Amino acid sequence: MSGEPIDVSHHLSALARARPVSPLKGLFKYWGKPGLLNLAGGLPSAAYFPFADLSANALQADSFPIKPTQESSFSWFWKLLWWGQGEDALQYGMAAGLPQLQKIIKEFSAKVYQPAYDNYAVLLHAGNTDAWSKVVTTLCNPGEGVLVSKWTYPSAMATMQPHNIRPIPVDTDAQGMRSDSLRAILTEWDEAARGMPRPHVIYAVPIGENPTGTTAGIPRRKEIYQICVEFGTDFRSSRTILCEDDPYWALQEGEYVPKAERKDNPLFAADEESRFIASLQPSYLKFDYQGRVIRMDTFSKTIAPGARLGWYTCHPTFAERLERASETSTQAPCGFGQSLITAVLIQWKYEGFIRWLMGLRLQYTLRRDCLVDNLAEEFHLTSAPGTGIWEGAECFTGYAKPRRSVNGYFNEKLPVKVHFEHHPAFAAKRMTAADLEMKLLEELAEAGVLFVPGAYFWATGDYADPTAGHFRISFSDASVRLIDFLH
Amino acid sequence: MSGEPIDVSHHLSALARARPVSPLKGLFKYWGKPGLLNLAGGLPSAAYFPFADLSANALQADSFPIKPTQESSFSWFWKLLWWGQGEDALQYGMAAGLPQLQKIIKEFSAKVYQPAYDNYAVLLHAGNTDAWSKVVTTLCNPGEGVLVSKWTYPSAMATMQPHNIRPIPVDTDAQGMRSDSLRAILTEWDEAARGMPRPHVIYAVPIGENPTGTTAGIPRRKEIYQICVEFGTDFRSSRTILCEDDPYWALQEGEYVPKAERKDNPLFAADEESRFIASLQPSYLKFDYQGRVIRMDTFSKTIAPGARLGWYTCHPTFAERLERASETSTQAPCGFGQSLITAVLIQWKYEGFIRWLMGLRLQYTLRRDCLVDNLAEEFHLTSAPGTGIWEGAECFTGYAKPRRSVNGYFNEKLPVKVHFEHHPAFAAKRMTAADLEMKLLEELAEAGVLFVPGAYFWATGDYADPTAGHFRISFSDASVRLIDFLH
Repeated sequence: MSGEPIDVSHHLSALARARPVSPLKGLFKYWGKPGLLNLAGGLPSAAYFPFADLSANALQADSFPIKPTQESSFSWFWKLLWWGQGEDALQYGMAAGLPQLQKIIKEFSAKVYQPAYDNYAVLLHAGNTDAWSKVVTTLCNPGEGVLVSKWTYPSAMATMQPHNIRPIPVDTDAQGMRSDSLRAILTEWDEAARGMPRPHVIYAVPIGENPTGTTAGIPRRKEIYQICVEFGTDFRSSRTILCEDDPYWALQEGEYVPKAERKDNPLFAADEESRFIASLQPSYLKFDYQGRVIRMDTFSKTIAPGARLGWYTCHPTFAERLERASETSTQAPCGFGQSLITAVLIQWKYEGFIRWLMGLRLQYTLRRDCLVDNLAEEFHLTSAPGTGIWEGAECFTGYAKPRRSVNGYFNEKLPVKVHFEHHPAFAAKRMTAADLEMKLLEELAEAGVLFVPGAYFWATGDYADPTAGHFRISFSDASVRLIDFLH
Repeated sequence: MSGEPIDVSHHLSALARARPVSPLKGLFKYWGKPGLLNLAGGLPSAAYFPFADLSANALQADSFPIKPTQESSFSWFWKLLWWGQGEDALQYGMAAGLPQLQKIIKEFSAKVYQPAYDNYAVLLHAGNTDAWSKVVTTLCNPGEGVLVSKWTYPSAMATMQPHNIRPIPVDTDAQGMRSDSLRAILTEWDEAARGMPRPHVIYAVPIGENPTGTTAGIPRRKEIYQICVEFGTDFRSSRTILCEDDPYWALQEGEYVPKAERKDNPLFAADEESRFIASLQPSYLKFDYQGRVIRMDTFSKTIAPGARLGWYTCHPTFAERLERASETSTQAPCGFGQSLITAVLIQWKYEGFIRWLMGLRLQYTLRRDCLVDNLAEEFHLTSAPGTGIWEGAECFTGYAKPRRSVNGYFNEKLPVKVHFEHHPAFAAKRMTAADLEMKLLEELAEAGVLFVPGAYFWATGDYADPTAGHFRISFSDASVRLIDFLH
């Protein structure tokens, strides 16, 4: 689907509009001229860089199986060397990043996210936290608000706070942000009463939103995108932009299928590129015929967080402003990281990267299943349709059984609610649920296991459940044995 | 010298004060607990990072000679592997950076810059451009001004502009910022007439300032530091902070010594650590008994710009706020870059890094000398004491000689003034000096050589010389033969 992107230049904040073009930009037309003796740039001599080349033991794309019955087959390619123009990666570079890497990610965004218009741009950035900082200060002036899920990623809120850009919480259900709540907020917005103009930016984590792991389906996305369009029909309000922060796209684990029925899990049938992509919820870009979506991808979950590397896919108007923001702050992402990731992606090729993601998705899925299987063995679990923020999800309530031995290797995250109604100190009103939650957290930490309180993920930071505690249990990091902590 | 640092907490801008502490910070005390099962962090599994190790062909510290009569002896160590905790570098990390690297740079700052108080902190950052962006938004509110040399680094000005933080130009001479002009501006500051409060931040590039390469000596530094102290005697004005942006410290080339006399250049006698350090102008930290200096170092000129890596040395009050600024934007610097630079510094050790810098300094000095030697051969050069912004420097005026063949390998930067008074189009008032400067720049670029106009380095961006053009010729980048462009 291809359409005419709207003119989005009036979406920019005063800060973004004031951001100057690099003073050297007028000379860039000469930069690549064949035979040019460039004495303008003030570059150090590459003859004095102490690294001649970088290499790495890197994994083949098919190292992890894509069916649970297969074994992992770690096959290494040594030495993975960066390509011929390694010097470019260590020299001062354009903020947009290495051209080879731009080309690879443009192909990836095109084939995988299939944006609904043609002239979208890609731009490398230094990780999604920095990317969101640039987006929000590019789009919002101090004193304005951003629409966010009531439960969301706290670092994104922390990034807004010093700029006096405030979260406007939208109700959630098991698919994350609710479109009816979003529409009501925008329709009923009272600028005088709220003390700020109607928000024109949505911060969305449509897949695996913290702390509950909610994911929006296609109808929900279409509704939300349509609201962006509707609240953009006249000049005054033609400015609802959706920023899609989507680190987990490739790691969607699908519904939990009980152990006995698992052989028919459709996930494991997704063994080729097109079926793999079709098995995953799409990006908002797929519906974005007006250029309203700024998508942020990261290599943090698929290669390594230490890379501090990712990319925007968005309308070129936004990409140009974001590139200017990079020029006066981070400049290009680290050349060591860019070059090694480029080298591995050139080696893997597009098909290999997809294959790598397929293997990775299965690994995390197996760990999720293992965790829930073990909980099912350890507790009496009863299943019921959720209500409130759990509406649309299957919820399990666990009752204690006599202790018995369990083993398991787990990996990623799981929301847990702890009921304090029957705790003696609570019943006697000596401790609140918040007191008990913190006490349990600290005692668990003293015993050697660390969770994050669910309240950290409340957008406005002031959540208190009257009767329960909430924890996010991350099962993504390393293989661990839960048995030591249950016994 | 050791003293009691002033309380600097009231120097922080509203933005910096509002910058929140990471919501997870309260849990950090548990993070390193032995045997802890950390299910809080949401980290990806390191088992799925596709890199097992990184290695590099890296140069030995003594690859470049430190006397001009010696040959370069490229000796490589292969393979330079990152140390045992490589996984830490690829995982999410503290914004402060890898502990091993922090330790190395703290030792370097202590031994080389010798701060005048004890409890200074070091903090890694993602290169000096990003570092300055964080400093200026941490210290200044929109609408305020920063004291800068009249001629300075344009990217630093570009970083301030979108935040509506304005440069207040201070007159310069051959040592850069003039202390008398600085004092006069602060003394005579009229808040109502200027439309902004008296500036409380100085941006200083005390060594190799663009475009003319000026460097401040010790008396000048003491005068400027004393002004910071004086304009900080009561609470209202107790806030003159000096940000020292010093990428060129190790590359100070000293005075140009004519070819015939060069064997006695004291530079070449500086063949051991203490004499090398003594031969270089010190950091402002050496006089900073009150904790007023925020020094920014970078590996861009000494290892590679693509590393996007450097560090602050400053009072812990500032370091803490700057670390918070990193947490909500860049997070830690790229782990690939951190790990490889840490690996090479561990291999070189402190003494080896100093040895590397000594070799590097000589290489750039030889290139500077070669460029000036060739200009001396190509032109009739006459020497005279400079006036105006050149006061205190030796200036050369070149007159055309009959063409003859010259050869040379050059490397770094040189300011050049081109006199247009006798150009026919200028004399006939058909073209201004600015027109002729741009025309010459474009014709040179078309012919294959690129300079930067000197006016790009005018702090407020509105410079026009009535009779001359100005270019910065960078002689730092790669070995090039000028002969093709002179003949």
